[in-house]
Amino acid sequence: MSELTGNCLVAQSGGPTAVINASVAGVVNEALNYECIEEIYGGLNGILGILNEDLIDLAGESQQAIRGLQHTPGAALGTCRYKLKKDSDYERVLQVFEAHNIRYFFYAGGNDSQDTANKISKLAKEKGYELRVIGIPKTIDNDLVATDHCPGYGSVIKHISTTVREMACDHEAMGQGDLVSILEVMGRNAGWIAAGAALAKRRDKPNDPPHLIYLPEVPFSAEKFLSDVRRTLSKERYCMIVVGEGLVDAAGNYVHASSSATDAFGHSQLGGAGDYLRDLVESNLGIKARTAKFGISQRTAATHASKTDSDEAFLAGEAAVKAAIDGVTDKMVTLIRGEADQYVCETGLTDLEEVANGVKTLPGDWINEDGTSMSFQFVKYALPLIQGEIDVPFENGLPKFAALGKTRIFRLLEPFQSE
Amino acid sequence: MSELTGNCLVAQSGGPTAVINASVAGVVNEALNYECIEEIYGGLNGILGILNEDLIDLAGESQQAIRGLQHTPGAALGTCRYKLKKDSDYERVLQVFEAHNIRYFFYAGGNDSQDTANKISKLAKEKGYELRVIGIPKTIDNDLVATDHCPGYGSVIKHISTTVREMACDHEAMGQGDLVSILEVMGRNAGWIAAGAALAKRRDKPNDPPHLIYLPEVPFSAEKFLSDVRRTLSKERYCMIVVGEGLVDAAGNYVHASSSATDAFGHSQLGGAGDYLRDLVESNLGIKARTAKFGISQRTAATHASKTDSDEAFLAGEAAVKAAIDGVTDKMVTLIRGEADQYVCETGLTDLEEVANGVKTLPGDWINEDGTSMSFQFVKYALPLIQGEIDVPFENGLPKFAALGKTRIFRLLEPFQSE
Repeated sequence: MSELTGNCLVAQSGGPTAVINASVAGVVNEALNYECIEEIYGGLNGILGILNEDLIDLAGESQQAIRGLQHTPGAALGTCRYKLKKDSDYERVLQVFEAHNIRYFFYAGGNDSQDTANKISKLAKEKGYELRVIGIPKTIDNDLVATDHCPGYGSVIKHISTTVREMACDHEAMGQGDLVSILEVMGRNAGWIAAGAALAKRRDKPNDPPHLIYLPEVPFSAEKFLSDVRRTLSKERYCMIVVGEGLVDAAGNYVHASSSATDAFGHSQLGGAGDYLRDLVESNLGIKARTAKFGISQRTAATHASKTDSDEAFLAGEAAVKAAIDGVTDKMVTLIRGEADQYVCETGLTDLEEVANGVKTLPGDWINEDGTSMSFQFVKYALPLIQGEIDVPFENGLPKFAALGKTRIFRLLEPFQSE
Repeated sequence: MSELTGNCLVAQSGGPTAVINASVAGVVNEALNYECIEEIYGGLNGILGILNEDLIDLAGESQQAIRGLQHTPGAALGTCRYKLKKDSDYERVLQVFEAHNIRYFFYAGGNDSQDTANKISKLAKEKGYELRVIGIPKTIDNDLVATDHCPGYGSVIKHISTTVREMACDHEAMGQGDLVSILEVMGRNAGWIAAGAALAKRRDKPNDPPHLIYLPEVPFSAEKFLSDVRRTLSKERYCMIVVGEGLVDAAGNYVHASSSATDAFGHSQLGGAGDYLRDLVESNLGIKARTAKFGISQRTAATHASKTDSDEAFLAGEAAVKAAIDGVTDKMVTLIRGEADQYVCETGLTDLEEVANGVKTLPGDWINEDGTSMSFQFVKYALPLIQGEIDVPFENGLPKFAALGKTRIFRLLEPFQSE
């Protein structure tokens, strides 16, 4: 172990999840154990706040606030979708690190964020600035490579399968063989989230909803879709459909992409796969279809979060600190599932390079031949991730979430000017 | 008290809620206390099941199942939107009642259902068939007259304000003065549900989301809307909007009604108020807006149900039986709020005639002058209704809801033929 004394910095990036704050709690909790970590800073709004030298004192936060992060959704430090573009941006990050003697950098995020962490790490090495950079996986999309699953995923699929089970009670009461219900869920490139809805089926009830799941991995055919719906309605009181927002046709084009606009990372802005399916049903089958789209609420559903997921997010934060203290850098923490039947999860490490910009899609053989349901292998994979409930405190009828005091660290540099 | 010996029948109608099953549990629980009630039947799928003689034995259900109804959403007996049309329909209902010696009829539903109950009651009187009919209020819309509030309402606004509070954590992390988020909620004729989102504001934080609430009671102006959004974004990190689906313009036309289709009761089918607002933002302000629409899930959110609401739904079921035993007929149970500061709720009775087809809109002076926020009177009214949480049992990571055994009562009549 090579001892490196200095300050540590943790920041969050990309879309928040129900449990990304638990990773920050894990980092703070573990960092307090080491004398070589002198100060524990938080960077506000991801990399954007680091550029702007917006740092706060996390060690000085109340224990109550840090403990409360474990049931608080969103990103308590703030986040961003800003992507470092120029060499001068990366150099500015290093200047901020140098000015504040930051020697440990922990960055919780998805593949774009791990790419950023990787580039910062490489530049530090190049410039001879001793820095240990460890990424912490975070994404409801579950699409990071090299990790069994991602913190955030278990909670979003617990939320969705809980809600599908609730909606089933309604549809069972209302349906007379003519009710079509469509739920659009997130998932731009992979169907992990839509697939997770399959957990709502009770183990001994294969005809439970969702009856049909449409995934970005399976090219969409309107003809087959209409035939799937017709067949379901002939057998069941209603047809409940879950669709991933990233549904594509045989040519690979998003069905019903709402516009040609792109976000800061150049991804197409999507929406409307659910509305598209509704229109198909209504105009071809002559029956009304009801749609729901949870939008951002699905990644913030702390009251439906998985205890297993929250615990693992915390563990990933702790593991990042332990690895850095051990002298490791330029790696991301991974979650490794034990081989035994009884689910256990340990942490490992992988190169940031490997994670950056990779995308893990659903294994093809986890999708049944009908293209609209999940195999037992998927259920075996996903079910352990939704076990256990979070005890969110309620006050006056509503959940009470933690808020950080956010004592600012005095700025030492000139204001950042993007060139 | 005039003693009337015979069987009782309870049925559910219209859109389910998170707590309508608690009313059935209340009816069964109370009916078991009286010797003059010989059998306790449930009618499947509302009035449609009664026409078809689809009756089940509720007294024979397990205690576990009846107890479980208190945390089970949907309508355990099934429901319908069928409206009795012809005199012969009403006569068939009485034939079924006569065949099964049903002397007590309890019908949980909204104003259309109370109208049906009223007509059955009147016909029985006309025909000299001794029958006691008591309606049980049920609607997430909270738009029944003569009752302080309706069972089902507290739970839907607890769900929505809980979710707004969760989404606020996300938006607070993501917003940089350019995030517009629009949540469309139910409410065809009245803004009670959208208004309830106001409870998400912490008491000492008037700038908490939702920043803007658009109600069917306030004629919509696109110009004022855009100015509201601009003003909010100039002061806050993001602008969170809640809109009721029944938003209308100054001429009283629904904004963005999706089609001219109507449901079985002749109501226009709505959808798209949220999408309409999104399009206004994107095309006029040049910034992206995110939408969410909970659809049917908002009325089934048992895991976010209000204990107060569930208890009152149960109480209303019990009160219906007590009133009928006391010789009352042709009334609906009402909820009456005590005058003291400390919230207490008792039951009363009102004429079915009065409730049938009436609509209670939000009092005008509960909407602030800005037209987009709620006054303290509204908060004082609504806050007690969301107090307390339901302890939904989870099994293997997901909620476990009750299911009835549904032992059928032998049919005694020829099959129903609608003329």
